[in-house]
Amino acid sequence: MYINILLFNDFESLDAFGPVEVFGCVDKYKLRYVSMDGGIIKSRQHVPVMTEKLALENFSGLLLIPGGQGVRPLANNDLFIHALKKFVNKAEYCLTVCTGSVLLAKTGCINNKKATSNKRAFTWVENSCPEVNWQEAARWVVDGKYYTSSGVSAGIDMSLGFIADKLGKQEADDITIKMEYIWNENKDKDNFSVQR
Amino acid sequence: MYINILLFNDFESLDAFGPVEVFGCVDKYKLRYVSMDGGIIKSRQHVPVMTEKLALENFSGLLLIPGGQGVRPLANNDLFIHALKKFVNKAEYCLTVCTGSVLLAKTGCINNKKATSNKRAFTWVENSCPEVNWQEAARWVVDGKYYTSSGVSAGIDMSLGFIADKLGKQEADDITIKMEYIWNENKDKDNFSVQR
Repeated sequence: MYINILLFNDFESLDAFGPVEVFGCVDKYKLRYVSMDGGIIKSRQHVPVMTEKLALENFSGLLLIPGGQGVRPLANNDLFIHALKKFVNKAEYCLTVCTGSVLLAKTGCINNKKATSNKRAFTWVENSCPEVNWQEAARWVVDGKYYTSSGVSAGIDMSLGFIADKLGKQEADDITIKMEYIWNENKDKDNFSVQR
Repeated sequence: MYINILLFNDFESLDAFGPVEVFGCVDKYKLRYVSMDGGIIKSRQHVPVMTEKLALENFSGLLLIPGGQGVRPLANNDLFIHALKKFVNKAEYCLTVCTGSVLLAKTGCINNKKATSNKRAFTWVENSCPEVNWQEAARWVVDGKYYTSSGVSAGIDMSLGFIADKLGKQEADDITIKMEYIWNENKDKDNFSVQR
């Protein structure tokens, strides 16, 4: 299965590269770094990553959408959202980290579905896309083919959760040992949610 | 202060981008992605990153050395180690993640100093560089200007530890909230050490 990491300028580095580390441990997954136009994309931390241009005809597998400052202009870019919707619909699974869930929500594909997002940006998230059934207290949320996580490092926990769901808990546990990572494996336990 | 992230082919993605996420939260730190020859460097997870060529004349600040499969050939590359030693000596601080500590150790700069490394590769690490006072049970180790961490995700904890040491515990705690990261803040507690 292809794991398509969708990058855009000012994406949050760990939102993308945390899941990359997890999925990179699975031999049968093939990782691709993609963007709408191809070429060099820079993260908020100025990491310059060379990307392939997304093309619907050779697109399949999982789509991962990170969050970050770069989400803000794209959330109001109708051309981007229109194009994104086609890839979301074609994806076998769609995973978002942090405010990446807003880009997904703007496509309308998760209207009336459960989802979560970054906790410090939660009011903006809710106001931007009121049609989504936002879950304020969740490390990550699963609804059908959609996995959405809380901020930044929660993407690592969600990716391990995806592995556990699809390949078994043992596979996820083995990856945590390779990564020397202490997995927050309860998706409903959220240390960062705030009563607003 | 410049934060110089030293990349080489087959570096482990999270070894570099975990610390990048932490250091990227500090406004007065300026991150640079560097390599010995410049150009595109690919991680073990095939992330293609555009790098600047390291140059001693404009080098200053912190040097971060990730680990990964790419360490193995470089550990026996005398030209690389000879060049690395000049940057390590000039660096204000030198931090390593995972088996990146072997590259540092090969320079001789941490002979008789305390250091740690990846726990699954520990026997290879000890045999490669017996002059180092390797600490088997440690999330990360500090000895003078040298910070060395255990495998992969331990680099995030060490980077937060560095911030706490240099800028105060409150600054580190603030970053964990931005990252929604549950910090393993006790450097002496190591869930992944094994009695061999």
